[in-house]
Amino acid sequence: MNVLEEEQTAFEIGVVVPKRDVKEEDKASDCVEVLVDEFRNLGLVVERVHGVVDEFIKLAAPLETLGRAAAELHIKKRTPIGMDLEFEWEEVDAFERQPDGSLFSWCERFRCYRHIIYGIINKSQSSVTLRFDSKEFQWEVGEYLLQKLESERIVKEVFPLHDEIKRKKLLQTWALHWWDFTNQPIDEIYSYFGTKIAIYFAFLGMYTRWLLFPAAFGLILHMFNFGSLQLLVLPIFFISIILWAIMFSQFWKRKNNALLARWKIRYPIRADLGYRQGMEWSSSQSIEIAKKWGTDKTKEREMFQRIEWFGRLMRFRNDAIIIFSIICLQLPFELAYAHIYEVIGSDIMKIGLTTIYLFAIQFFTQIGGKISVKLIKYENNENTEKKADSLVYKVFGLYFMQSYIGVFYHALLHRNFSTLRKVLIQRLLVSQVLENLLENTLPYLKYSYKKYRVRKKKREKGSSTGKIQFASRVEKEYLKPSYSASIGMELEDGLFDDFLEVALQFGMIMMFACAFPLAFAFATLNNITEIRADALKLLAMLRRPTPRFSTTIGAWLNIFQFLVVMSICTNCALLVWLYDEEGKWKIEPGLAAILVMEHVLLLIKFGFSRFVPEEPAWVKADRVKDAAKAENMCSKQLLRSISGERATFGELKKSQ
Amino acid sequence: MNVLEEEQTAFEIGVVVPKRDVKEEDKASDCVEVLVDEFRNLGLVVERVHGVVDEFIKLAAPLETLGRAAAELHIKKRTPIGMDLEFEWEEVDAFERQPDGSLFSWCERFRCYRHIIYGIINKSQSSVTLRFDSKEFQWEVGEYLLQKLESERIVKEVFPLHDEIKRKKLLQTWALHWWDFTNQPIDEIYSYFGTKIAIYFAFLGMYTRWLLFPAAFGLILHMFNFGSLQLLVLPIFFISIILWAIMFSQFWKRKNNALLARWKIRYPIRADLGYRQGMEWSSSQSIEIAKKWGTDKTKEREMFQRIEWFGRLMRFRNDAIIIFSIICLQLPFELAYAHIYEVIGSDIMKIGLTTIYLFAIQFFTQIGGKISVKLIKYENNENTEKKADSLVYKVFGLYFMQSYIGVFYHALLHRNFSTLRKVLIQRLLVSQVLENLLENTLPYLKYSYKKYRVRKKKREKGSSTGKIQFASRVEKEYLKPSYSASIGMELEDGLFDDFLEVALQFGMIMMFACAFPLAFAFATLNNITEIRADALKLLAMLRRPTPRFSTTIGAWLNIFQFLVVMSICTNCALLVWLYDEEGKWKIEPGLAAILVMEHVLLLIKFGFSRFVPEEPAWVKADRVKDAAKAENMCSKQLLRSISGERATFGELKKSQ
Repeated sequence: MNVLEEEQTAFEIGVVVPKRDVKEEDKASDCVEVLVDEFRNLGLVVERVHGVVDEFIKLAAPLETLGRAAAELHIKKRTPIGMDLEFEWEEVDAFERQPDGSLFSWCERFRCYRHIIYGIINKSQSSVTLRFDSKEFQWEVGEYLLQKLESERIVKEVFPLHDEIKRKKLLQTWALHWWDFTNQPIDEIYSYFGTKIAIYFAFLGMYTRWLLFPAAFGLILHMFNFGSLQLLVLPIFFISIILWAIMFSQFWKRKNNALLARWKIRYPIRADLGYRQGMEWSSSQSIEIAKKWGTDKTKEREMFQRIEWFGRLMRFRNDAIIIFSIICLQLPFELAYAHIYEVIGSDIMKIGLTTIYLFAIQFFTQIGGKISVKLIKYENNENTEKKADSLVYKVFGLYFMQSYIGVFYHALLHRNFSTLRKVLIQRLLVSQVLENLLENTLPYLKYSYKKYRVRKKKREKGSSTGKIQFASRVEKEYLKPSYSASIGMELEDGLFDDFLEVALQFGMIMMFACAFPLAFAFATLNNITEIRADALKLLAMLRRPTPRFSTTIGAWLNIFQFLVVMSICTNCALLVWLYDEEGKWKIEPGLAAILVMEHVLLLIKFGFSRFVPEEPAWVKADRVKDAAKAENMCSKQLLRSISGERATFGELKKSQ
Repeated sequence: MNVLEEEQTAFEIGVVVPKRDVKEEDKASDCVEVLVDEFRNLGLVVERVHGVVDEFIKLAAPLETLGRAAAELHIKKRTPIGMDLEFEWEEVDAFERQPDGSLFSWCERFRCYRHIIYGIINKSQSSVTLRFDSKEFQWEVGEYLLQKLESERIVKEVFPLHDEIKRKKLLQTWALHWWDFTNQPIDEIYSYFGTKIAIYFAFLGMYTRWLLFPAAFGLILHMFNFGSLQLLVLPIFFISIILWAIMFSQFWKRKNNALLARWKIRYPIRADLGYRQGMEWSSSQSIEIAKKWGTDKTKEREMFQRIEWFGRLMRFRNDAIIIFSIICLQLPFELAYAHIYEVIGSDIMKIGLTTIYLFAIQFFTQIGGKISVKLIKYENNENTEKKADSLVYKVFGLYFMQSYIGVFYHALLHRNFSTLRKVLIQRLLVSQVLENLLENTLPYLKYSYKKYRVRKKKREKGSSTGKIQFASRVEKEYLKPSYSASIGMELEDGLFDDFLEVALQFGMIMMFACAFPLAFAFATLNNITEIRADALKLLAMLRRPTPRFSTTIGAWLNIFQFLVVMSICTNCALLVWLYDEEGKWKIEPGLAAILVMEHVLLLIKFGFSRFVPEEPAWVKADRVKDAAKAENMCSKQLLRSISGERATFGELKKSQ
């Protein structure tokens, strides 16, 4: 069992409690001491750090502790025969390792940590009296300790800690590794941040690398004058850009599958029919239904169909509400702003209007996000990541209007390519540069402010008068802001904003590609810095984010594909305007109506399969139930034989 | 083991040999006697029938004989835990039964029969001398007997026999069951004809049932005059028809999945990523590659990618050749015919021209089918059903042009709805009625001609002078034509023609829906008779078809979806013509070019994922290999425990 030799000493979880004055005789009943003792009893390695105003308990877990927790959680892990089987500590050799050699991925480790520390329960016969400074309270039998302490406001926060060695290595090989444009150490990012963030950076890297082609094409178009061929070059550019985008989204899916194969994660054959999602869904719903209806197959099937269609209807209703409110509330607002901005003469008024507008959209987005989160609660999405996807779709609608309505308005009003270009340059350059700046300075400012507040608090207490130093790294980390989304903490984290930025940029450059081919070059430059800026932000500016399990970029891929379809239509409109300078090709309203109807029908044709899946819910539930049954039946036997095989294989190797 | 009691006495395979005069002393060395002895030795039940000119050996197999063959073939069967495991006769209780209670489906039985009778080999030490009338030849050691006899032209044919009891029951409950329009006993059809034919009839039934809605709508449109609303009603009809078609194709997929779940066939989550197909592919190719490259993962991966892309390129080249030749050769020909037909004045000339044309397209279609089959040989399609799909796509191109170019020509030339309607009625009624007649009379004529020839032959031999009666049912069946496709016997059977008819009808009614809403009612009537006509043909006119394993309607679903997209565009064009009677909305060539470009790009956008799959070939190969490994490892252990569980369950039931 050479696994046990593996070093697993890095502290990965921090628990924050306030500083107290504990006398020696009270130590046995001090709540923090009790907590620490419980941690030690569970096999965790504990280090206590006294900060300026708080005390920090750093936790690390030996591999065996994690393994036992994983077995309790019934975590499924990949085995060499390609099946995911429930983890058992006794058969540890039967499971595949991560690419970096460790047994558990960061996602799995985090789940185990949470299971361990939130699972501390009073197993004794009587309740235990806990003391916090002068306050006293009872830890009842069967009560969870950490939840109790959190509700008493004693445990301020539990958060994942940075691993200094790995963090510094990543800073060198990734964030500050400037001269290799798009190559990133994806495997290390995966083992440090988990799937979702690694997949974001893999996507961003591939997107930037692919952008080099249209950027070069756009540059050539901008620099050379093709004379009489000019009118032919633009359609060629348009077609090649669209083909490029179509190929990109398909090849990204392939790359995503290849990454998952490398990381030994079960491949979701198709997002909406994915196996893992199915599992989670079955565990929550189908078992309930099975309990209710027992062995009556037909009734069970009817029940499933009712649940399936009800969920779909709720989803449809929610989407309809969102789309309706965007069109009826947001669209007029955006148009009014764009119009007033055009009409107003003085520059000061313009600045004032823009300021009001910026505050207003901040406010609207917040409200939109909150309403969306509330609506999503009524949908029966299969798991948290599906819920997050549902939120992304809804909120993206808001941002789509915000970002593009102004540009469309200008394009329609002026019907002039040079004005459109100016607006685009302004949006692309200004917004991207500003966002990149804000993205990195805002966390720093927040951090500085928090530091200042802690110092002030300390001074008020009057313990010292000189400059207060934050000696411990864990305290500094605690003061750093967390990786959170601008639309709220529920369901989504900071990746939402990062993805949103990329998606809005993609929409901007694609939808107006014919008007401004140079945009691709700007986008490329921006993305190269974006990769580094995001990496720096994650490694240096923020706390280590909570790992999320998600095997694809989820909703964002569909948004990218939607933007490609949109850009086919908008670019065609742009080309019509461009070649129809004399206005001869007047499009009659009747013709326009028929064309619009045609496009809407085509979209429904290609989108309908998303609304009604190919596989009825009861068929899926049966399949998933069956698969689970099969795995459960053979799980233990298989594990033993795999371990056996590996052992003999190892002996063979040694004897050679 | 109550399984053994099951009756399995129906004769299902017939072997045809010529009649001989065998003397008693030659019996030991007569080749047919040897064959029959071998059949009996293998555990088959043999019945010999002497026909008018031929002798027929009817074969039936007891369940155990089939089971042993299935185990030798490593046939995978569904078990109650939902996994498909290799069949083992000893653990027969561990496998799921078919809906009709038998252990093996007709597909599986047919495979077993073939395995048994074509597996007869000379296992003795020396070659055996066989005699056929006066001819003598050697059956060498290690040589297969049936192949030898087939190459010596002694065994004329091996064909599946009708099961009289089931056939008569199906005739009553299905073919002659007129008053229940669209309900069919699909499970019985499945157990008698196999998956592919059952799925065709399920599809046809559902299609006809769904057609009732547009048929009613079309009738209303035809019968009532909406006055000033008339111009509004047509677009509403158009939109609802398209929505109907979109919903139909999606709900068909759901129904297909539900059917497969009921028949206990592993559900193909997605046709191109299907598990079963993957298995077959892996068995032929990936094992070869694995052998070549051993454990070198990177080289194996590169190899896979090369094979994948080469196959895709070949497929692309073939499709390009087909499309190019259709456009360059067939299109001008069809247009020329349509034009000349318009120009010619006299009716006799018209009839003459049409006759020549009909012969010419028969000839062209034959050539096209042959070229396609040849081209497909160079593609690395995963299995025979994929090859058949590839053929269907290619040949459908030909038929598409044949059927619709004329109509398009009329529509474009006259720009007149009433002429178009006349052409449509002519095509729909005449062609459908003619086809239905031909479909059922042609087999009967063929059968009569064959009977006549046999009688003539017999008379020439001079054995009798009176009317010769075909007393044995098996001889009559032998004289019936087989269920074969008009484009040739390879890859496809008669289902091709039946599906083609439905698809061409669907295209005709959908693409010109706005011009002729009544077409849906015609189509409904036609389909109701079509179901019965096809059923009658299969049950009474033809030999029992060879069962094909195919879990979906394959290429035809994509063709239906393509026709829906086409019909969106054509109906829009029809509406433009309709509302633009004064010709005001003149579409400039520039605008038309841009619109065409847009539509082509949209199609590429939605079609590209078919060209490049999401999952790279090496990821898929890994997954499939892994799954196979897992199944092999636990197969035997699982079987034993399932049998055990079932036995205890049975006992429990008895004791209650």
